[in-house]
Amino acid sequence: MTRVEIFSDAVIAIAITLLVLELPFDKVGHGELADALGDLWPSFAAYLISFVGIGLLWLHHHAIFSAIARVDRPLLLLNLLLLFATAFLPFPTALVGDYLHEGGEDARIAMAFYSANWLVMTLAIGAMWSHAIRADLTDPELTADRAHRLLRSFRVASAAYVTFTVLALASPRASIAGYALAAAYFFWASDFRALEREVVEERAS
Amino acid sequence: MTRVEIFSDAVIAIAITLLVLELPFDKVGHGELADALGDLWPSFAAYLISFVGIGLLWLHHHAIFSAIARVDRPLLLLNLLLLFATAFLPFPTALVGDYLHEGGEDARIAMAFYSANWLVMTLAIGAMWSHAIRADLTDPELTADRAHRLLRSFRVASAAYVTFTVLALASPRASIAGYALAAAYFFWASDFRALEREVVEERAS
Amino acid sequence: MTRVEIFSDAVIAIAITLLVLELPFDKVGHGELADALGDLWPSFAAYLISFVGIGLLWLHHHAIFSAIARVDRPLLLLNLLLLFATAFLPFPTALVGDYLHEGGEDARIAMAFYSANWLVMTLAIGAMWSHAIRADLTDPELTADRAHRLLRSFRVASAAYVTFTVLALASPRASIAGYALAAAYFFWASDFRALEREVVEERAS
Amino acid sequence: MTRVEIFSDAVIAIAITLLVLELPFDKVGHGELADALGDLWPSFAAYLISFVGIGLLWLHHHAIFSAIARVDRPLLLLNLLLLFATAFLPFPTALVGDYLHEGGEDARIAMAFYSANWLVMTLAIGAMWSHAIRADLTDPELTADRAHRLLRSFRVASAAYVTFTVLALASPRASIAGYALAAAYFFWASDFRALEREVVEERAS
Repeated sequence: MTRVEIFSDAVIAIAITLLVLELPFDKVGHGELADALGDLWPSFAAYLISFVGIGLLWLHHHAIFSAIARVDRPLLLLNLLLLFATAFLPFPTALVGDYLHEGGEDARIAMAFYSANWLVMTLAIGAMWSHAIRADLTDPELTADRAHRLLRSFRVASAAYVTFTVLALASPRASIAGYALAAAYFFWASDFRALEREVVEERAS
Repeated sequence: MTRVEIFSDAVIAIAITLLVLELPFDKVGHGELADALGDLWPSFAAYLISFVGIGLLWLHHHAIFSAIARVDRPLLLLNLLLLFATAFLPFPTALVGDYLHEGGEDARIAMAFYSANWLVMTLAIGAMWSHAIRADLTDPELTADRAHRLLRSFRVASAAYVTFTVLALASPRASIAGYALAAAYFFWASDFRALEREVVEERAS
Repeated sequence: MTRVEIFSDAVIAIAITLLVLELPFDKVGHGELADALGDLWPSFAAYLISFVGIGLLWLHHHAIFSAIARVDRPLLLLNLLLLFATAFLPFPTALVGDYLHEGGEDARIAMAFYSANWLVMTLAIGAMWSHAIRADLTDPELTADRAHRLLRSFRVASAAYVTFTVLALASPRASIAGYALAAAYFFWASDFRALEREVVEERAS
Repeated sequence: MTRVEIFSDAVIAIAITLLVLELPFDKVGHGELADALGDLWPSFAAYLISFVGIGLLWLHHHAIFSAIARVDRPLLLLNLLLLFATAFLPFPTALVGDYLHEGGEDARIAMAFYSANWLVMTLAIGAMWSHAIRADLTDPELTADRAHRLLRSFRVASAAYVTFTVLALASPRASIAGYALAAAYFFWASDFRALEREVVEERAS
């Protein structure tokens, strides 16, 4: 692992762990804890979605860096943009937790902000990968098939986040439900098997 | 160490260190600091128990990863679940600190929530290990005896956390006392010697 | 990487990720979220500038450590000073966010404090590099040309931060605009190409 | 570096960087920022002392682990105690910042609490080292002279923290002044040269 990967991993690991600090839990009056925790469901949902999403991002970031042989300036800048948006994610995650059950315009703004943040992250990592292919930064052993499957993954994800951002303006709850479906899709149907194989091989070597 | 282990270690190290940020210390009036600190004992107790517990979790996580030769998809997903619950632990830890001395239903809910969080963590790491054995992911040099002792450890821990969760609903203070006893048991009587031997060997090599 | 570099990287990665925790987001009344987020622009601007600045600092820190062959006591002490000021940066960043749109003396103090923090960071890393050259700690393969270009970088940056500190006392908004220009300059015109080449080589090896 | 050292380093790096989050900075009224920052001097002083102290602790922790050939159970338990007290330090650091200028009993309690925390840290690391010598865990190449100089360091530090704890009960400000002197002493007169030589050698190899 190079210093770029170590630094990226550290930022991603810190961001995923800091999420918990944004969960609100002001002390409530006697006998009201059960209701207060129940009212926190949008915060718990946002926390869960952000945690799983950053976990998936980490897997894909790993896949990209293990498949490239060298880095150039645009790749480093795109990586910095990705880390910027990842480190920022706890802020819109907290917004969703605070405003989703308010309904109305506030819920729509919070959810659209959150989705836009994910869209930036997906565009950044997708741009990293398509730049790496175009600028011939990839490992000679990488197959064209594998490269295109990963690229398709990022395209599907970008389309999903555009949809979620637009959907958030109509129905924030439909948008958050979309995230749950998307996470399930990525886990079970996407390029995850290829990512897994790679991690397995790294472990075995 | 593979990237999975480094990422896991980072999340565990960050979670254990973030615990301190959940300790409440709103400024109190003149001459009231001693009493205020005394009133914080449930927070200090919860902090101590969570810190020691995460420390023990780290030792067992290390033991698992040093005894397996390769990883597969279910193992990675279970590891993500384990990290999710570990990163979440500061939240119920703070709940225990805030509500344990309130007594009544709030204390029972806080302590049961906290125990359920530990139960998820123990089930996740236990499932990782039993899956690793079943799916033949373990190192050929691992003895059956060692594998079963570690498995028994996780079973005992799971049974303990089920007990603590149920006990919390009856008597939250008895439940927290159970944690202190359990930590002592794990330190002095459990598979700790085997863990230690391994760390020693790693150091010596 | 030696333990000094790992420790430095960890502190820098944690500081850059903690910035998000200083973004204020107290819950606002119904229908006021859009306006409240709009009013946060100084906080977002300060966050962005600090994030990009620490990113650039990390690149230069990397450049220094990959170009020196050994460390001595003054270098370690200067590195500790650099880490001290870097870990402290979230505090003045939050001040800028809170006070920039207040205008008046408060905005000037906040912005001057922030600029002074960056000045200390730049002087520390510049002193590290000029000490490394003077005390002959650098790698024999380092060219004099490369050494002097990096030194000039730190001098330009120090001059910029002195300017921003003074400018802050006259016009805090002009000062913050200066940061945006400086970041752009560093990205596109400074010694960045050399930094990049190095990272590329590390990756390739 | 073994996994024990990496985990310890991560906790130490996180604790040193989290200190900044405990600096209070509630927004003040128009034109009051300068005074408010001036009133924060005990918080800044406590932050500085804790930062430098943890930095020195890291250097000594590094010295111990680079001089031992193997670890055993008591060493791991003492290391966990050390990490526990280190991760806890931001709490008493914040207490000192909040209560030192209050004067009276509150300032004495805060400062004694803070000093007792440092005393635990010093006793833990000192016990690690004396145990390592007694249990013959040290590297065969370690000279008796070096071993004893490091041991003397920890004894002097322990005596200093006992003094500061007692002094805190009489005069909290005298106690905090003692820390400044102690930090200077450790930097310039203690076993620091030996630590430095080691880091230098690690770098050169």
